[in-house]
Amino acid sequence: MSSVEMIEAAAARLAGHARRTPLLSSPFLDDIAGRRLLVKPECLQHTGSFKFRGAWSAISALDPEIRARGVIAFSSGNHAQGVAHAATLHGISSVIVMPSDAPRLKIENTRALGAEVVLYDRGRESREEIGAAIARERGLTLIKPYDEPQVIAGQGTVGLEIAQEAADMGVERAEVLVCCGGGGLTSGIALALESRAPGMRVRPAEPEGFDDTRRSLAGGSIIRNASETGNICDAILTPQPGQITFPILQRLCGPGLAVTEDEALHAMALAFLRLKIVLEPGGAVALASALFRRDALQEDTVIAVASGGNVDAGLFRVALDRFA
Amino acid sequence: MSSVEMIEAAAARLAGHARRTPLLSSPFLDDIAGRRLLVKPECLQHTGSFKFRGAWSAISALDPEIRARGVIAFSSGNHAQGVAHAATLHGISSVIVMPSDAPRLKIENTRALGAEVVLYDRGRESREEIGAAIARERGLTLIKPYDEPQVIAGQGTVGLEIAQEAADMGVERAEVLVCCGGGGLTSGIALALESRAPGMRVRPAEPEGFDDTRRSLAGGSIIRNASETGNICDAILTPQPGQITFPILQRLCGPGLAVTEDEALHAMALAFLRLKIVLEPGGAVALASALFRRDALQEDTVIAVASGGNVDAGLFRVALDRFA
Repeated sequence: MSSVEMIEAAAARLAGHARRTPLLSSPFLDDIAGRRLLVKPECLQHTGSFKFRGAWSAISALDPEIRARGVIAFSSGNHAQGVAHAATLHGISSVIVMPSDAPRLKIENTRALGAEVVLYDRGRESREEIGAAIARERGLTLIKPYDEPQVIAGQGTVGLEIAQEAADMGVERAEVLVCCGGGGLTSGIALALESRAPGMRVRPAEPEGFDDTRRSLAGGSIIRNASETGNICDAILTPQPGQITFPILQRLCGPGLAVTEDEALHAMALAFLRLKIVLEPGGAVALASALFRRDALQEDTVIAVASGGNVDAGLFRVALDRFA
Repeated sequence: MSSVEMIEAAAARLAGHARRTPLLSSPFLDDIAGRRLLVKPECLQHTGSFKFRGAWSAISALDPEIRARGVIAFSSGNHAQGVAHAATLHGISSVIVMPSDAPRLKIENTRALGAEVVLYDRGRESREEIGAAIARERGLTLIKPYDEPQVIAGQGTVGLEIAQEAADMGVERAEVLVCCGGGGLTSGIALALESRAPGMRVRPAEPEGFDDTRRSLAGGSIIRNASETGNICDAILTPQPGQITFPILQRLCGPGLAVTEDEALHAMALAFLRLKIVLEPGGAVALASALFRRDALQEDTVIAVASGGNVDAGLFRVALDRFA
């Protein structure tokens, strides 16, 4: 099971490989938030999102002989790029199974990071069957996106950094808002903070209408989203919390927060103007919650994890046109 | 005079106040540069540029009684915001003398950071006379933008960080490209690297047509630019190298590099796509030189200092429209 000891071990394996991201802030954002706001910019992580941490953690934890055979993942997004890059840096091969209608740029980026991309038809084929057949044939290890203890441990290293960086600033109590899809990042950070910064509480942030984690936490059991698509926050649209992540979320996190698409775009524009970082919509929902849900927050300090920045120029322009 | 000991003393005063910026990289940018490329993102510094370091260094070095009377600066740009914010954090007042036709947003931001903004008419009035009268009347200390040893020492802390961060990555030899206006940042980094990373050489980067430092270094004496305006890299358009900075540049730096406005915009778009950071044109010329002047570089590793990110949304959109 996942634990702070596993997270510390993951941090040791990531040292010198993952980037340590600083805590950013701006007096202009403090004014909007009505409190001290610190932002952890994981968009600056390798491959543009926190996913590199979990991928590196999982791959580096494999038995060397098993690792040498290569890894496989299903993803059209940030997990794909994280696994591809971490595999290449380990000198092993990776296969990423992606829908054939995934954005061309994401397919090209994943290939350029060293992965073999296998495309499937979303309508007619099952990615699980295709992936299982390739994995069996070549002896590849599946790297799951969140429901995997070593992935959770890797994402939890964000929490260790937050605890230390906040302590250096004299911050002991805070609400820590985390962009939440399947819950790997959220649960990992919560486990790290539980022992390293017990005055902090993790609160998941999601898009409205895709707030399965918020509703599951409120209802006391896993509740699925009605839909899996139809929101610009594509990086964090998962059908439901994970089987491994949900019990951790239930024990340590909540209540959840949810923001509109417009609020995510507005947060992207403010991050551009005030922090000089590039966020994707799904990576901006925690910041949006800190800025636009001030009445739902209690502490004098809020820390927002900005989880990724892989947005195309067209959508970024929309955010600037409307809110900058 | 400026020295590495002064830079170390400035670093001690800045500890816990200035942000320590990480070194970023992307395999996609390495491909374009044809070598290993590391980027020092000072756009992530407080107020969006390295200028906060020099301002903090100079203000914190003042005698407490003199400091308590307040400071004054002439600037319509990044130096204004750096001085205003550093003064406010020290609990003292600041006056910033700005031309009345400066962008409204820059005036508002400088005020919001706590400064009293005094506007003057560029055509009819002398900012030096106005500033001198206010300074005399109120006993304010002038914080110069670059020709001031404690400002150079503050900017030099960027060099101390580069030396340590590069050593952690096993990098000892590199060309370090620095966006160069009056030369405060460039000379400060060069002084720091001279003793902390003697295998590194600093090379100033400027906009074509405003490459006074490049031409001055090549000619062996200070040569002015023909014009002071008319380029989008406004943050680094100074008439000529400083009297204090030029001898340091001459001893330690060069040859200079220069890029076009289009190359600066292209570098901004690539920084958006691959590093997830926001650069202004003047803050992107070193990165542009690393990407588009590969034949003018010798070392296997190049480090580009991305000095600032205070760009308005309109100009940023131009970069995205054309190059992303």
